Amino acid sequence: MPKALSDIGLIGLAVMGQNLALNIADHGFQISVYNRTVEKTDKFVAENPNTPGGLVGSKTLEEFVKSLAKPRKMVILVQAGKATDAVIDGLIPLLDKDDIIIDGGNALWTDTIRREKALKEKGLRFIGSGVSGGEEGARFGPSLMPGGEFAAWKELKPIWEAVAAKVDAKTGKPIAGAQPGKPVKGGVPCTTYIGENGAGHYVKMVHNGIEYGDMQMICEAYSLLSGLLGLKPADQGKIFSEWNAGALDSFLIEITADILKQKDPANKKKAFVDVVLDTAGQKGTGKWTSVNALDMGIAAPTIAESVFARCISAIKDERVAASKILKGPKKKKYKGGKAALIQAIHDALYASKICSYAQGFQLMRAAQKEYNWKLNFGEIAQIFRGGCIIRAAFLQKITEAYARNPNLANLLLDSYFNKTIQKTQENWRKVVALAAEYGIATPTFSSALAYYDSYRSARLPANLLQAQRDYFGAHTYERTDKPRGKFFHVDWPEATRPQLEA
Amino acid sequence: MPKALSDIGLIGLAVMGQNLALNIADHGFQISVYNRTVEKTDKFVAENPNTPGGLVGSKTLEEFVKSLAKPRKMVILVQAGKATDAVIDGLIPLLDKDDIIIDGGNALWTDTIRREKALKEKGLRFIGSGVSGGEEGARFGPSLMPGGEFAAWKELKPIWEAVAAKVDAKTGKPIAGAQPGKPVKGGVPCTTYIGENGAGHYVKMVHNGIEYGDMQMICEAYSLLSGLLGLKPADQGKIFSEWNAGALDSFLIEITADILKQKDPANKKKAFVDVVLDTAGQKGTGKWTSVNALDMGIAAPTIAESVFARCISAIKDERVAASKILKGPKKKKYKGGKAALIQAIHDALYASKICSYAQGFQLMRAAQKEYNWKLNFGEIAQIFRGGCIIRAAFLQKITEAYARNPNLANLLLDSYFNKTIQKTQENWRKVVALAAEYGIATPTFSSALAYYDSYRSARLPANLLQAQRDYFGAHTYERTDKPRGKFFHVDWPEATRPQLEA
Repeated sequence: MPKALSDIGLIGLAVMGQNLALNIADHGFQISVYNRTVEKTDKFVAENPNTPGGLVGSKTLEEFVKSLAKPRKMVILVQAGKATDAVIDGLIPLLDKDDIIIDGGNALWTDTIRREKALKEKGLRFIGSGVSGGEEGARFGPSLMPGGEFAAWKELKPIWEAVAAKVDAKTGKPIAGAQPGKPVKGGVPCTTYIGENGAGHYVKMVHNGIEYGDMQMICEAYSLLSGLLGLKPADQGKIFSEWNAGALDSFLIEITADILKQKDPANKKKAFVDVVLDTAGQKGTGKWTSVNALDMGIAAPTIAESVFARCISAIKDERVAASKILKGPKKKKYKGGKAALIQAIHDALYASKICSYAQGFQLMRAAQKEYNWKLNFGEIAQIFRGGCIIRAAFLQKITEAYARNPNLANLLLDSYFNKTIQKTQENWRKVVALAAEYGIATPTFSSALAYYDSYRSARLPANLLQAQRDYFGAHTYERTDKPRGKFFHVDWPEATRPQLEA
Repeated sequence: MPKALSDIGLIGLAVMGQNLALNIADHGFQISVYNRTVEKTDKFVAENPNTPGGLVGSKTLEEFVKSLAKPRKMVILVQAGKATDAVIDGLIPLLDKDDIIIDGGNALWTDTIRREKALKEKGLRFIGSGVSGGEEGARFGPSLMPGGEFAAWKELKPIWEAVAAKVDAKTGKPIAGAQPGKPVKGGVPCTTYIGENGAGHYVKMVHNGIEYGDMQMICEAYSLLSGLLGLKPADQGKIFSEWNAGALDSFLIEITADILKQKDPANKKKAFVDVVLDTAGQKGTGKWTSVNALDMGIAAPTIAESVFARCISAIKDERVAASKILKGPKKKKYKGGKAALIQAIHDALYASKICSYAQGFQLMRAAQKEYNWKLNFGEIAQIFRGGCIIRAAFLQKITEAYARNPNLANLLLDSYFNKTIQKTQENWRKVVALAAEYGIATPTFSSALAYYDSYRSARLPANLLQAQRDYFGAHTYERTDKPRGKFFHVDWPEATRPQLEA
């Protein structure tokens, strides 16, 4: 027997939307659903008759809005950009004061800021919520990163906390085992209030940038295991399974093990990865993260390298042509110990990962200042622990680091991460050196190491760079023996008679 | 005796504007000048009474416009952005059909496209011209990169060719020796029609991105010579002078030698660079280049790393604090041969430089497609040879490469550059490996090497990445044994029973 009014509504019944709606219904909430093509709505509702909360199909937006309890809460899950704006524009005339629109798409955070502001002026409320975990996450527990007015979040909170992924309160480990109609019980939900206006979508974007880095770093480990040791995919799959039992324990390492062990469905004698074309697609969030890093002047080179690595992978034909012309080094076969090198690659991956996350958290730190948000970095790491693509045991260490020091200037400075890097750095350096010598491209491993070595340098060679700028552009320079903010210039064209000009 | 009407006008009398005006006047053109504060105009004209062409000061924009021969040509040299728009808005009502506004500032090329379009609709013509070479270049010969209507360029051409830097027709070497009132005679001018609308400013932006790369790479060479060999600045100055006599012959290597030999003006016992603070500023064009690379999906990681290197240099206090906590490797003192290592660093610098330029030219190639320009890459390299900050003997090799093959897919594939990399790669790899092992940050050397090794790889590990995307996001994958454009998906959650889905 359906309630007169639904607890929440959802617009956009592509796979993500359907799965999130079912997840919400599984938790006992009655949910109204709407899709532009009515057939899709009807089919979806007809195919899922017995959810605990119940699905209510709406043929029109008017009907949809009228079916919701006030203050109305409606989740939009359509393509980011114009489609989102179109849906919002359609809803506005139908809504009442304090109704809440929730955008669950991968919106650019600046769009979310704009939308929140525009709706607030109309007396409506807007939450931009990152939804991470892909289709599987949406169905059985995503990580949810909501940003907007705190009072609006309070209205959404019971539902968002119910449907979010859950982690064990003590260990922080994700609780698995949800089934259709039978969600997991207990545990800490992977959602928390992130901050005002665009904060949720910003954090989701950085999450995705970090994900780009993680995936590329795993590819480099795979490439090194293949290139230096000639290991077959299935044997590498075992190594990744072992790694998944240790410090690298994470969703991406786990599925990498699965993938590497997988046979080609078309020919069981072949390894699956060997028949997959080496061209990676991208949907833009890694790029957004890198562009934002450049715009804010915050170093996130490892994330940017992972985006560029996808770009190079995409020009397959050019690479095949180039491979016939451009030679690699003479060194071909690695002759050192196998077990030691596997460990070294593991260590390089872990140390690089720390640097990549450090960069991501530096971005959030800078954005927090720029937008006047109050981000809780420990909590953010915690909600990444379940549901997300980047979920990993490692994140618990980040939460602990910020618990030790909420004002940590950089993750690298935390005692755990510092110790880990000290333990791994010899191997890390060895791997980056071997990659260079053997001609195996490791853009993110190398970039992460350069980041570490730059960040820990009290003195970088930028003194020479600034002197060059002063030479050709009269850009002035500061001095090591004078206070910051005092600028000097050498009259370079007559460099033999230099003058000190303040 | 001044002519009734001036040949050209110039608005904005900061140093760049003054110098370009004097350069124009030196070539016999009468030039009207205007500045918002009249005193500046009066002072400038009074201080330069006897130029060959003559300066005419204008107190108002009206007077300025009336003083010009038709079709009027007026160069704007004010701050890029709003100031440029304000000047253009002020000019529009005063101009007649076919008058030509030339923006010589560092405008974003998309702004130039917008302005050109808006002015064309009003019957006016607009040229966005990159001006490279800093204050010195503006005064005695810049490199000029004009974009806009070809017919408008023809009007500007005599003046632009006269004032541009000159290179020797045979050797391509810059012709130096200009003095106030006595410009150099003969030679090939460093200016050419780049293309429609924003093409000139786009090429100027890429020039600047390449410049960022060059400067950072030189810094890394300096850092390695200091860190591995403990060489003093003055001794390094000698090395850079030697390098400047060889393949690396260029303005930036030359001034680096000057700078490294320079004593501190405040204390002649100290080397100048040792008292310069290691924080590099930036004005945004390197960032624009990197952002555009990300937007177009073209790999320019080395240029981006050089921008991020400046970002890290800027957080001096954070680095000083980190240096007390984060340790480097145990290896400290390099024990190999000194001369061999100096040569290896030279080779690493040269090979990295080739990769960085290859990235810059790939950007121009992609932008050409995007904006429907017809860029002549050989000519572009040629006009970089004089006036520009990146002027270098090396550019002649680029011109020759495009002469051999105007449709070269990538500079790396040219026989000269390929041979050079084959000759240098062992040393390049050695240097990148040593940097990793000794803890010296070489973000651009490493990134350039990873670019080379990626670009020459027929097979990259992106197959694993795409398999991951298919696993968690159902993004599908292509197969090595099927035509491009056919997409497959594995039903991963039941990975033990994979199905092939087209």
